[in-house]
Amino acid sequence: MSTLGNSTNIFWHDCAVGKVERQKLLNQQGCVVWITGLSGSGKSTLACSVGRELHSRGKLSYVLDGDNLRHGLNKNLGFKPEERTENIRRVGEVAKLFADAGLICIASLISPYRKDRDACRSMVPDASFIEVFMNMPLEVCELRDPKGLYKLARAGKIKGFTGIDDPYEPPLNCEIEIRQKDGICPAPCEMAGQVISYLDEKGYLHAH
Amino acid sequence: MSTLGNSTNIFWHDCAVGKVERQKLLNQQGCVVWITGLSGSGKSTLACSVGRELHSRGKLSYVLDGDNLRHGLNKNLGFKPEERTENIRRVGEVAKLFADAGLICIASLISPYRKDRDACRSMVPDASFIEVFMNMPLEVCELRDPKGLYKLARAGKIKGFTGIDDPYEPPLNCEIEIRQKDGICPAPCEMAGQVISYLDEKGYLHAH
Repeated sequence: MSTLGNSTNIFWHDCAVGKVERQKLLNQQGCVVWITGLSGSGKSTLACSVGRELHSRGKLSYVLDGDNLRHGLNKNLGFKPEERTENIRRVGEVAKLFADAGLICIASLISPYRKDRDACRSMVPDASFIEVFMNMPLEVCELRDPKGLYKLARAGKIKGFTGIDDPYEPPLNCEIEIRQKDGICPAPCEMAGQVISYLDEKGYLHAH
Repeated sequence: MSTLGNSTNIFWHDCAVGKVERQKLLNQQGCVVWITGLSGSGKSTLACSVGRELHSRGKLSYVLDGDNLRHGLNKNLGFKPEERTENIRRVGEVAKLFADAGLICIASLISPYRKDRDACRSMVPDASFIEVFMNMPLEVCELRDPKGLYKLARAGKIKGFTGIDDPYEPPLNCEIEIRQKDGICPAPCEMAGQVISYLDEKGYLHAH
């Protein structure tokens, strides 16, 4: 590798490729877009739409889906309170790594407790944690019931289901709130537009 | 977001941005470069050199360092056998996600047991796990002793230290082996060159 031969004067122990260099390469800024809300509120749909729109703009993003990670990184965790907390902590830690790698990391988890979300916020550098609250009425989510889970929860076959017999604590100071307008849910592209606009305004879609 | 208005005919539930699209964006192929070897064998140095060289070629990589992750994702794990295994499993799962995101993920861990490394290999698609064995003599590593750990292990102040009172199981079929030539350790740029050459030959430095 002749190109490597020129590098012999570099101090090799100083690992000079850091977040700033990666962000320049990608022409974007790493951050965490944390989508929280009830089951059926549209988190995965939004995550997917945001990822698609970012890609069409040449930006690199990656979706961390709570359900998917339970088949891999978090497969040794159940649904006891302390296991839910650990589940969210691990996703937060991984999201932090992706943001540090320069990606726009889109995490999509119910993450019902404020303290767990706040713990994830505190892991990443200031302002690079963007909390998106899917503020959809429970009735709407329950009508959709895409996974049939509300039915099971109402029948008592799932215990501790968020919104039914376990609380959802809405964010107090989220960066973005997605809600119905005149009783109509926004289309995925509209919801994604709200997130993309925010990222654009805050400068995440360019390197600094 | 007027540009989003054009996307309303897309099937939003089909999350079309996948590994292939990300790889095209990055013009590279996601994979895991897993560096294994004794403490002091030069894993971090190699990881850093490879990352630097990849960056100079416009390729996006990210280093997962075993020690660093013990301050974050793995901070609730100690050094009992089952905790070591879980430590490596989590790093493997995260490396898998990074490779899926399209990055060249460089994992740097002692990872002394063959079964733990093989478990990580089995997580990622065939051939995209590239095991790099830092085959340095124990005497060399112990002389370097960059963290002073061998001294503590010899004095009995650390128990179960790899190479002293806990075994290191060398890979049987690693993709790359780094070793001394005529009793001299290769320079970091030479070691990195060996890895970069491999990635280049196998096509990882371009999208397919």
